[in-house]
Amino acid sequence: MGVNALKKAVFDQVDPSARPGKISATNKIVIGLILAAVGSAIVETEPTIVAGNEALFRQLEIIFGLLFLVEYVARLWVADMNPAYAHSRFPRLKFIFSLSAIIDLLSILPALFAVAGGATLALRFVRFFRILRLAKLGRFSNAWADLGAALHSRKEELFLAFSLASFTILIASTLMYWAESEAQPDKFGSIPRTMWWAIVTMTTVGYGDVYPITPVGKFLSGMVSVAAIGLIALPTGIVAAAMSDVMQRRKGKRDSA
Amino acid sequence: MGVNALKKAVFDQVDPSARPGKISATNKIVIGLILAAVGSAIVETEPTIVAGNEALFRQLEIIFGLLFLVEYVARLWVADMNPAYAHSRFPRLKFIFSLSAIIDLLSILPALFAVAGGATLALRFVRFFRILRLAKLGRFSNAWADLGAALHSRKEELFLAFSLASFTILIASTLMYWAESEAQPDKFGSIPRTMWWAIVTMTTVGYGDVYPITPVGKFLSGMVSVAAIGLIALPTGIVAAAMSDVMQRRKGKRDSA
Amino acid sequence: MGVNALKKAVFDQVDPSARPGKISATNKIVIGLILAAVGSAIVETEPTIVAGNEALFRQLEIIFGLLFLVEYVARLWVADMNPAYAHSRFPRLKFIFSLSAIIDLLSILPALFAVAGGATLALRFVRFFRILRLAKLGRFSNAWADLGAALHSRKEELFLAFSLASFTILIASTLMYWAESEAQPDKFGSIPRTMWWAIVTMTTVGYGDVYPITPVGKFLSGMVSVAAIGLIALPTGIVAAAMSDVMQRRKGKRDSA
Amino acid sequence: MGVNALKKAVFDQVDPSARPGKISATNKIVIGLILAAVGSAIVETEPTIVAGNEALFRQLEIIFGLLFLVEYVARLWVADMNPAYAHSRFPRLKFIFSLSAIIDLLSILPALFAVAGGATLALRFVRFFRILRLAKLGRFSNAWADLGAALHSRKEELFLAFSLASFTILIASTLMYWAESEAQPDKFGSIPRTMWWAIVTMTTVGYGDVYPITPVGKFLSGMVSVAAIGLIALPTGIVAAAMSDVMQRRKGKRDSA
Repeated sequence: MGVNALKKAVFDQVDPSARPGKISATNKIVIGLILAAVGSAIVETEPTIVAGNEALFRQLEIIFGLLFLVEYVARLWVADMNPAYAHSRFPRLKFIFSLSAIIDLLSILPALFAVAGGATLALRFVRFFRILRLAKLGRFSNAWADLGAALHSRKEELFLAFSLASFTILIASTLMYWAESEAQPDKFGSIPRTMWWAIVTMTTVGYGDVYPITPVGKFLSGMVSVAAIGLIALPTGIVAAAMSDVMQRRKGKRDSA
Repeated sequence: MGVNALKKAVFDQVDPSARPGKISATNKIVIGLILAAVGSAIVETEPTIVAGNEALFRQLEIIFGLLFLVEYVARLWVADMNPAYAHSRFPRLKFIFSLSAIIDLLSILPALFAVAGGATLALRFVRFFRILRLAKLGRFSNAWADLGAALHSRKEELFLAFSLASFTILIASTLMYWAESEAQPDKFGSIPRTMWWAIVTMTTVGYGDVYPITPVGKFLSGMVSVAAIGLIALPTGIVAAAMSDVMQRRKGKRDSA
Repeated sequence: MGVNALKKAVFDQVDPSARPGKISATNKIVIGLILAAVGSAIVETEPTIVAGNEALFRQLEIIFGLLFLVEYVARLWVADMNPAYAHSRFPRLKFIFSLSAIIDLLSILPALFAVAGGATLALRFVRFFRILRLAKLGRFSNAWADLGAALHSRKEELFLAFSLASFTILIASTLMYWAESEAQPDKFGSIPRTMWWAIVTMTTVGYGDVYPITPVGKFLSGMVSVAAIGLIALPTGIVAAAMSDVMQRRKGKRDSA
Repeated sequence: MGVNALKKAVFDQVDPSARPGKISATNKIVIGLILAAVGSAIVETEPTIVAGNEALFRQLEIIFGLLFLVEYVARLWVADMNPAYAHSRFPRLKFIFSLSAIIDLLSILPALFAVAGGATLALRFVRFFRILRLAKLGRFSNAWADLGAALHSRKEELFLAFSLASFTILIASTLMYWAESEAQPDKFGSIPRTMWWAIVTMTTVGYGDVYPITPVGKFLSGMVSVAAIGLIALPTGIVAAAMSDVMQRRKGKRDSA
């Protein structure tokens, strides 16, 4: 097998644009690796699991970093076969400065800290980077872009629903502050504090850390809870309609392909 | 530039009816000022932020008042160019007694208290006025009027849904009062008290300050929670349909414009 | 005015079937009386309001009873003009045994206890009757019958949704009992006890009196909460569709009338 | 009545496929028995009910087992009349290895333990089997299969909604861990622990065992609660649409039958 044939085979394996709608065996492994690396980063925040296994997690991190490095080099090598970069005079340079390549490069960085031992100061920052490796998955699906476009096309409705909800939260907090601030100054002692009650009530989460105790406050709270049903109905309807748009467009694409 | 040209320019800048569907640079600033003034009034209720900064907040309030005064005078000056008042014999008088102008005038009042030092007695009342400056925003959008009209056209459905919910709250409270009043007299000791439980449960907020502890009470509470799913479905469907009406009407207007 | 003209006038005023779709002035007063009588019965359960006002509430009750008695006699008198009873050989007897007349008669009873002083033993029972006066309202609207019919026509869907929810509650309770019974024997110590957790979680009420504390229990609880989203979606969709049916049918009736 | 006529009568009574869409008197009794057996198994987990009635529950269990055994033998006897097995060379053997027959056989097992006295070790396992008798009901309805098929046909939408929710839970947990881990190390001390908060908040259950106490945490929690409205809207819309598919297909089948 000549270099060109090898390069073509690598391109088919690492670049999702080579065979649209299909995910190659190599890319399935890469997806697995990303999920494993993110999972490892999440588990590592739990002290009771990490205790005594620090070396294991460090070695794992170095392995993930090496594998992502190999993938990056492979993608860089075959970048000139990708139609998106091929027409450029410097296809590899164009690839290096593409969002997807920058994300991939940043994904390798955390492993360097694992090798170097890592200053405690940078640790929190590095941990974030390791979880943001999730963004590498973006390359394999355009569902997010589709959903984003669908929501964008309904931005007026969403803005109206959002304004209405903000307005109601503000009025509710002002009234509730007036009704409860004397009875519970620590929880309803100012309008910004009362907003926490408003959002916990209107989303129907209702943790139970704040709730009215005066009769007037309870009456207002009841009114607000009922109004919230309507306010939640607005974005629910908009998002459901946007989702249905996405799905019809995707089916349309597939049928015409 | 002559006085007439200046007046025309001012009219274009301060009156939203001058260029329907567009918001002038001046009005964008006015909207920003309204939001800032309301934000300042909200933040000022938080003692930990205000402490030591009383002078700053007072000066801010005076600045907001002056700017709203300038806007009011400008609107008054160009009122005779607004088609809504132009045909009247006293266009400025008609403007002064319009809802929008009364709101604008009331918005200036709180600043006077800031200048005068303000009796503590009037403070709470003034604070309310400062937050009600939000109503000034109403002039820039007819979305609220549209939504109100859409809900009004479905008032029968909403009345039916509301009656059904009220009826269920009443029956649920009566049964629950019967089941729990002996076990928890402070929380379920009368039907009005039990209604607080009913509304917290049926809106699925569930703060956790009141909940049944007897087996019969728990059984009833379960039935009520399940019935609530259906009761919440009614207004949700009505509001979502009304919202979709609003949006279609607005798109229709824009297309025909 | 002769007796017949008076009788016709009384019939027009007290019988909703005299002028379909319209509510006479007398009936508006009757509706107000019903709401006032029910409101009074509810308020009377609150000891802090009743204390010292027992005589007032007793007098109110006697007045309500007298007025309902007058209404009953009037309806009885004009019963032979109502097309529903007119064809019978004993229209008044047929009226007396109609559901609506029985409800009206039962509504008068509580006042007798107020007159007689009332044995404490019968009090709770009487209170119930006073709140059930709400049922008198049923005569003025067929919305409930319409909604009942619409839900009945979808009874298969509702049965399927209800079975699915019951099944899930059962499986969830069994699994959770297995996971949490040792850690919290008082709350998860048997499957019937655990069902209280299941219903509070699946309706998303979440009072906070019961929640899992073991890792396995938390994992199961998370799965159940997510599954509940789908389970709540089923009856929500069915009820919303039934409601839309009711409204279209009513509009159809009105248009063809 | 000859043996063949008897066998035909038994077949009509015990096999739902004999008269599609109808449930025979015998099968109604079988369904009642299944519900009673499952109900008995559930109630038996409650110590306060079982105490002193152990013998009664054991006898009940033996009776249920015997009746299920009779049903199994009857179904086995008439298996060669069922069109699904009739064409096979060994219709009874084919019946024995069908899912429905295996479930029925497993349903008899728990009674053996009741007879034998039952080692405490196996008790928990046996209890599970007794509740899984619910699966016997599956034979009488294809609604589950229909619903499963409808959801399967929308697996892409569900996968997208599920990914989006998982992604949001992960990001929310990471941010919240960063904001609250110092203030509440026992509840937000690692990302896996924080996920419990994320799922309780995003499903709007809100037990109240975990909630943010820092201002940043409260702000993030508010954002997540609002985002959750949209995330819950996605599967709600998908499941409601799938349910409507099921119902239309079933009505189509019935109309064409």
